[in-house]
Amino acid sequence: MSTSASDYNRIKALAFDAYGTLFDVHSVIALGEQLFPGQGTALSNTWRLKQLQYTWVRSLMGHYVDFWKVTEDGLVFAAESLKLDLDSGKRKQLMEAYLSLATFPDVLPGLEQLAAAGYTLAILSNGAPPMLQAVAKSTGVDRFISEIISVDEIQIYKPSSRVYALAPKKLGTTTPATGFVSSNSWDVTGAASFGLTTFWINRGNQPADELGFAADQEIRKLTDLLPLLKAR
Amino acid sequence: MSTSASDYNRIKALAFDAYGTLFDVHSVIALGEQLFPGQGTALSNTWRLKQLQYTWVRSLMGHYVDFWKVTEDGLVFAAESLKLDLDSGKRKQLMEAYLSLATFPDVLPGLEQLAAAGYTLAILSNGAPPMLQAVAKSTGVDRFISEIISVDEIQIYKPSSRVYALAPKKLGTTTPATGFVSSNSWDVTGAASFGLTTFWINRGNQPADELGFAADQEIRKLTDLLPLLKAR
Repeated sequence: MSTSASDYNRIKALAFDAYGTLFDVHSVIALGEQLFPGQGTALSNTWRLKQLQYTWVRSLMGHYVDFWKVTEDGLVFAAESLKLDLDSGKRKQLMEAYLSLATFPDVLPGLEQLAAAGYTLAILSNGAPPMLQAVAKSTGVDRFISEIISVDEIQIYKPSSRVYALAPKKLGTTTPATGFVSSNSWDVTGAASFGLTTFWINRGNQPADELGFAADQEIRKLTDLLPLLKAR
Repeated sequence: MSTSASDYNRIKALAFDAYGTLFDVHSVIALGEQLFPGQGTALSNTWRLKQLQYTWVRSLMGHYVDFWKVTEDGLVFAAESLKLDLDSGKRKQLMEAYLSLATFPDVLPGLEQLAAAGYTLAILSNGAPPMLQAVAKSTGVDRFISEIISVDEIQIYKPSSRVYALAPKKLGTTTPATGFVSSNSWDVTGAASFGLTTFWINRGNQPADELGFAADQEIRKLTDLLPLLKAR
């Protein structure tokens, strides 16, 4: 999966994963810690793990529910497994935190550079449209994003190839001329197997998943992307 | 999903999940600990987590490889993420441990009771056929099992409904008259959503996954199953 720099000239549009890429899902740790002292990190880790598992398992079972429900189901399981008393008030608070997650520090500067350089920027996410609209607005990401594409319209989650097919279709680009950017290695794998040109933001210097399809390029932060696209 | 005891009279055949249900995947901890002192448990946990993730992600991507490869890929990732030097000799040793996993203590007594009572017993597993044959033989489970059914023939992993459909088809039973037994809550969910009669062996008293389909019955150990089936 090596793409020469000149191939990047074709790329006019970039689709970004949302959760874990633009928005830090673990920004709920502080609230979790406040509600359940000493358990914030464990709650956040199990919550995220289960949220993702449930998207995969439900997609394979053919029983889709939207990402708000999957996220709430993951939270309920995580609290039960940690024996935390998640009353309806605490549940509501934690769920609403998902609507105002923090961005990673490199996100707004990186998006601003790319938008100024003329790229069409979009979100391609598992999230339900109201969740994505809310968090894009609360973070200011909406200033740079021209389209929010959600799996909700096709009722199956990443990494189904049907999800990645939405990006070129909605953005009016060819498949290889559509860039896809994610921090989730398995998500990059799915996009690469479909044929999008992929950029893996590996902020934590983690090993890539062993799934048979590598990212075209690995970067450390979103502000590394424009220089890479412009390199000759 | 409540099934009255009398409905269980219809059940003539029982299909068992293999890994985590009959065979303890964490029986590799001892070898992991010997090869990488202090890291055996972390290695086993990450290995299992990634092995499962890779089955789901590959199924959704439509890029099947067999369970031996997925298991090896999970091991390679786990070792890299823990910064362990997994040379080819150590990799081979750990992979071969998968062919002689331990059974949980309730497994052989439970299977013996059910076989003596006249039930047809089968394995329905993600495992590749040679892996399943080897571990069934090394543990003695093969004495009680009349059929080993592997997803390998349909090239998609659990919880695709196509996997659960194999059990009644191969065993010559109707769907609700086919019992399915697993310790993996998400696996029980998949079987229940397809319509098999499901028994969740919850040895660790864990919360059930929040996936919308509950087990018909929850038990603590395999030796609880025959009394339950025979209850009037």
